[in-house]
Amino acid sequence: MSDNGKDAMTPWKLTLSYDGGPFHGWQVQPGLRTVQGTLAEALKDLTGETVLPQGSGRTDAGVHALAQVATVALATPIPAENLVRALNRALPQAIRVLAAEVAPESFHARHSAVQKTYEYRIFERRPAEGSSVECSPFLAPYVWDCPWRLNVEAMQQAAGMFLGTRNFTSFAASDPDKTLREAEAGSVNPVKTLFASEFQRENGLLVYRVTGSGFLHHMVRNLVGTLVEVGRGALEPADMNRILEAKDRSAAGPTAPAKGLFLVAVDYER
Amino acid sequence: MSDNGKDAMTPWKLTLSYDGGPFHGWQVQPGLRTVQGTLAEALKDLTGETVLPQGSGRTDAGVHALAQVATVALATPIPAENLVRALNRALPQAIRVLAAEVAPESFHARHSAVQKTYEYRIFERRPAEGSSVECSPFLAPYVWDCPWRLNVEAMQQAAGMFLGTRNFTSFAASDPDKTLREAEAGSVNPVKTLFASEFQRENGLLVYRVTGSGFLHHMVRNLVGTLVEVGRGALEPADMNRILEAKDRSAAGPTAPAKGLFLVAVDYER
Repeated sequence: MSDNGKDAMTPWKLTLSYDGGPFHGWQVQPGLRTVQGTLAEALKDLTGETVLPQGSGRTDAGVHALAQVATVALATPIPAENLVRALNRALPQAIRVLAAEVAPESFHARHSAVQKTYEYRIFERRPAEGSSVECSPFLAPYVWDCPWRLNVEAMQQAAGMFLGTRNFTSFAASDPDKTLREAEAGSVNPVKTLFASEFQRENGLLVYRVTGSGFLHHMVRNLVGTLVEVGRGALEPADMNRILEAKDRSAAGPTAPAKGLFLVAVDYER
Repeated sequence: MSDNGKDAMTPWKLTLSYDGGPFHGWQVQPGLRTVQGTLAEALKDLTGETVLPQGSGRTDAGVHALAQVATVALATPIPAENLVRALNRALPQAIRVLAAEVAPESFHARHSAVQKTYEYRIFERRPAEGSSVECSPFLAPYVWDCPWRLNVEAMQQAAGMFLGTRNFTSFAASDPDKTLREAEAGSVNPVKTLFASEFQRENGLLVYRVTGSGFLHHMVRNLVGTLVEVGRGALEPADMNRILEAKDRSAAGPTAPAKGLFLVAVDYER
């Protein structure tokens, strides 16, 4: 141990999975149950230290994570394996620490990220087929239970039109907090690069998987809401160019429900 | 419609799926949220009729169902498809009606059943391998998060020893309600026939699937609790014969947690 208390702090990189259902999103908020706040409480219980773990980004209320990344500096010396086990004992079942590793001093969960992957899960009711297939109670909290019969080929074509480097202003939340959020985040650049944007049928679900350099607030849910408009025939794939060019939220489709969205991976340079 | 109100009652067979987590089991209980009670409330909302649907059997608090079967006679005329849709609108998301069909007059959800299938889902932590693989928050409510490394070959061998017609007294709950339950159910025959009893690895889980002519209270959970004792080396497969012959609950292993158990199917003669 160093004599210098500051030097003795260990920077940890935590990988977390959580069911977003019971939480008011990632970010700590007074009087509300959030993932960041719950994690801070568990760390305090465990170490006595008052710390606020920093995530790779905020997830909104109801959004899930298969592998969110957060950093936190702790003075308490503890082996990684014990940190994982002790945190999981202190945390509610809806949040699990999958891994803990000592991070380089320069590591920052948000600024060091080079790309993120999200997955959006859709259950199709397919009423046009006359079947009464219902979304199971085990799937319902984790999918958009979509009432329309969807043209997946058209959705796939439209999804491909978002690939590459584009201005995604039309898909950014136009919420009242926007100015505040932008101010907090510094200048928000609406130009992002998407490396993957496609649909796959998996385990009876229609899954949209998107990987990008970064995402604007509500961007994945707005992309999905727009792609479902294509799927049900209210928009054509070719309309995607017009919507991107409009740089206006009202040009795109509605925001898909939070509960179908999963943060799947945050990648860092090695 | 017949002039005779009684003749006009339609006997319905409902197939239901539910997440047992939020419920105090199937059976209606004053002041508690149960599946049967919640279904009765939805039927009342929908038809104005005060009815109590009868299940193929009770599931305990926390036990899930992929396809429970229940019967209910309704005077209100309603097409099957509309009944499914309207009930699902009235029910909480944790209960879904998968199908509704008009049943023969003689049909009884419990007495007409010829066999039932249950599934029990186990997540293995495998700490002996030194991995820190954690049970995800999405699986945790639906599995037994088992701390031991399990010898599945031995469990498979032991599971096979329950096949055929046997006296399962050693695996029946020895709870304080037992006398009452038996009195209610008439004479409970502890001799049951198992047609299938085996483990499979599926999607990273160890799944025990058992099909039988009938099951005693807690029987599947007691079978699984005992089979896990075999898996962790506290019992040998050959001990199963001794336990069956003892006809004594204390001879068998502990009761596995409710949350890993799913009622998968109830079969009726065609």
